[in-house]
Amino acid sequence: MSNKFVEAITPREENFSRWYTDVVLKAQLADYAPIRGCIVVRPPGFAIWEAIQSGLDRRFKETGVENAYFPLLIPESIFTREAEHIEGFAPEVPWVTHAGTEELPERLAIRPSSETIIGTMFARWIQSYRDLPMLVNQWCSVLRWEKATHPFLRTSEFLWQEGHTCHETEEEARERAVQMLHIYREFLEDVLAIPVISGVKSDREKFAGAVDTYTVEAMMQDGRALQAGTSHYLGDGFARVLDIQFLGRKGELEYVHQSSWGVSHRLIGALIMVHGDDRGLVLPPRVAPNQGVIVPIYRDDSRDRVLGEARALREELAEAGFRIHLDEREEYTPGWKFNEWEMRGVPIRIELGPRDLDSDQVMLIRRDTGEKEPVARDALADRTTDLLEEIQSGLYRRALAFRKENTYAASSVEEIIEIMGRKRGFVEAGWCGNDACEVEIKEKTGTTIRCIPFDSTEDPGVCPACGESGEYRVIFARAY
Amino acid sequence: MSNKFVEAITPREENFSRWYTDVVLKAQLADYAPIRGCIVVRPPGFAIWEAIQSGLDRRFKETGVENAYFPLLIPESIFTREAEHIEGFAPEVPWVTHAGTEELPERLAIRPSSETIIGTMFARWIQSYRDLPMLVNQWCSVLRWEKATHPFLRTSEFLWQEGHTCHETEEEARERAVQMLHIYREFLEDVLAIPVISGVKSDREKFAGAVDTYTVEAMMQDGRALQAGTSHYLGDGFARVLDIQFLGRKGELEYVHQSSWGVSHRLIGALIMVHGDDRGLVLPPRVAPNQGVIVPIYRDDSRDRVLGEARALREELAEAGFRIHLDEREEYTPGWKFNEWEMRGVPIRIELGPRDLDSDQVMLIRRDTGEKEPVARDALADRTTDLLEEIQSGLYRRALAFRKENTYAASSVEEIIEIMGRKRGFVEAGWCGNDACEVEIKEKTGTTIRCIPFDSTEDPGVCPACGESGEYRVIFARAY
Repeated sequence: MSNKFVEAITPREENFSRWYTDVVLKAQLADYAPIRGCIVVRPPGFAIWEAIQSGLDRRFKETGVENAYFPLLIPESIFTREAEHIEGFAPEVPWVTHAGTEELPERLAIRPSSETIIGTMFARWIQSYRDLPMLVNQWCSVLRWEKATHPFLRTSEFLWQEGHTCHETEEEARERAVQMLHIYREFLEDVLAIPVISGVKSDREKFAGAVDTYTVEAMMQDGRALQAGTSHYLGDGFARVLDIQFLGRKGELEYVHQSSWGVSHRLIGALIMVHGDDRGLVLPPRVAPNQGVIVPIYRDDSRDRVLGEARALREELAEAGFRIHLDEREEYTPGWKFNEWEMRGVPIRIELGPRDLDSDQVMLIRRDTGEKEPVARDALADRTTDLLEEIQSGLYRRALAFRKENTYAASSVEEIIEIMGRKRGFVEAGWCGNDACEVEIKEKTGTTIRCIPFDSTEDPGVCPACGESGEYRVIFARAY
Repeated sequence: MSNKFVEAITPREENFSRWYTDVVLKAQLADYAPIRGCIVVRPPGFAIWEAIQSGLDRRFKETGVENAYFPLLIPESIFTREAEHIEGFAPEVPWVTHAGTEELPERLAIRPSSETIIGTMFARWIQSYRDLPMLVNQWCSVLRWEKATHPFLRTSEFLWQEGHTCHETEEEARERAVQMLHIYREFLEDVLAIPVISGVKSDREKFAGAVDTYTVEAMMQDGRALQAGTSHYLGDGFARVLDIQFLGRKGELEYVHQSSWGVSHRLIGALIMVHGDDRGLVLPPRVAPNQGVIVPIYRDDSRDRVLGEARALREELAEAGFRIHLDEREEYTPGWKFNEWEMRGVPIRIELGPRDLDSDQVMLIRRDTGEKEPVARDALADRTTDLLEEIQSGLYRRALAFRKENTYAASSVEEIIEIMGRKRGFVEAGWCGNDACEVEIKEKTGTTIRCIPFDSTEDPGVCPACGESGEYRVIFARAY
């Protein structure tokens, strides 16, 4: 059978970047917009974002975080208050200079991140330690002007959440930053089936204005690293310039300690690049907007009987708590539908034809392995439960095995160059902690320090640049 | 007992506008931001917005609408393509002229509404009638530069949803526009307990670029009208300038017919002004983030016993499906808490002290009427169900009665002036359909035509301006 969908996708081994773009466009996850660096998130992509949002939002709220909404525009005088922050973001900030025909008295930045405007409000709202901790989050879009568009991964506008918290002490603020990183890790691993390495960024790679940046890093199928979420301990730097003070327990004015943390719609890019295959997207069941799709197969004389049964099946599975879609479209053949839903990554396909009805069964097809199995009609709900679990855990295990297979040890710059030349993946190596060595390795190998893992307890080994014994065992990789 | 909260609120009869602002600020629904015309939506206000979002979003999706996300910025060449649209919005559009230090080759408008950018994408996505109808919605913020700030009601940036649809025929597009208006009406009446009048706008009052604008109008407690939601039949005007064509069933290229429809966070303003009283906000149970709050009352010797029971109660009510908060804060007295939760509009307060424990009961207090009743512990869940329903329907009935009491008939400009001078409310009158008469009435009375009701079947009566017999029976009012 001709397969328009598969023909349309470049195989991963041929050109990973084109494969990625093909999946994004053909599965209608996103499209390019007529504004430099911007995309439109189309309904199938946005449904994944909604699933990510609802899963994370519930987790945030369970820890006491509340949602709020702060202005898109930040006056220049406020935006430029924190020196490192403005230095980091200034080159990519869009500026509003006019409203209607009127020139504004002060330029307004479109937020690249909201530390300064949110901090300005915190300063008003916080008077005493009784007002702490203050824990807010917002779901919104932010802008960072980009030269090129890489859908979901690097775009001039992107959807994200940014959490911002204030605390009495450094310890509490650091605990919160790490707590939120663990929520990201748990969500990525348990829901998105993406194994991650948690750790700390080097100074060179940290957020503009942070004391420390914590990160979760994932390996894509081309071996490159994707920073999937970050959480920052901000110290009292923003508090000092924005004057966020509170009356402490001892009756003295103190500055708050802050954290901020975020994930963006690049998680959709991670899902594509970790689980996808040459037939398209592969979605883990826990985040799939549709966990299963029913494709009825009939001729004119069996139409009513098959469709009637398919609808009953859909009702039954929906009542059992599954997210199930019934594809009743008349203008497409079953074969077309099979390919389209495979492309869109739906975990399970349920085929139902007249002969299935006769033998009181349906056919289940797994998206991840392509395996087919007939299932008795009255065992369907139970089997679906098990199968979704198998797919979920199978995807995670496969991704973890891939990362392990593609992680190498190195102790010299030459070794890193060699690994990057003939293989793909992460390199574990020592690092002496010096910025100069980090820069040298980056320039010579194209890799950067992705993170200093939390659980790095083994002997660090030598720094590949200077050959001295390392302070840390770190992960080097090329990154998105 | 001193009551900081009530003291802080201006009574409605003294100054309605100040009462409104007091409630917004003291209940921490919003705060002014340091950008002209902008507010911050604080957590208690945003929780109401989340309840509105989830209720409407579910209703949209049940009709086949899918969510998506389109760019914030619209290139000037695209934004200015539809003449009436640009004429309507140009005076209030913020323009981005620079990114970083670079001057942009073309100015970018921050969206005041997304017809033009979404239509540009529709033109790419729609090829044939098989792609229709196309039904998308986005939840986002839009900007319309305002001179003054009226929190939630008129702000330079506001949260809203905008639905955009394409259809094969005018009939289908009009049906969709009216269908969405009915969803707004049903949601406003059944969930927000706000009675509305549904109808059509006069040409003068319709959306920039629409053929017809449908509206739902509500009466606030000061008698003014608030446009609570609008839905537009756009015709093929945008389709013609943006080239949104499809291959029709007869094999010819045709332009799509479109609808768009939206509600904004001004619904929070409507909730305040329809149900609020001199003690603060009053929330209908179906939209209240907390339907009930438990306030434990104890001394040191009864603390553990009361708190233990309060927690058990909270669990029990949460399991029964209620949204219940237990206020365990140690640093505030019960009296303080009573006032604070009243201010925030929580429908039911549940008081629990040692004597209540002894007699196996709790005390229930209704926010709307202030009535207190003791309820046996084992009857609590049932009584709560009933009471929430009573509050919900009571608020609606009260608001409907208020609107009826404050609606007057008039047949001359003088009568309208007299009514507006010594009363407040809506005026029903005939209208000949001429723009000149509409303008004259507006100039002389300060009222505008809020809508031509759908169910206006009675004799229209004479036009107050020209005295000719009216074409329509319409609603005149001062409006937000």
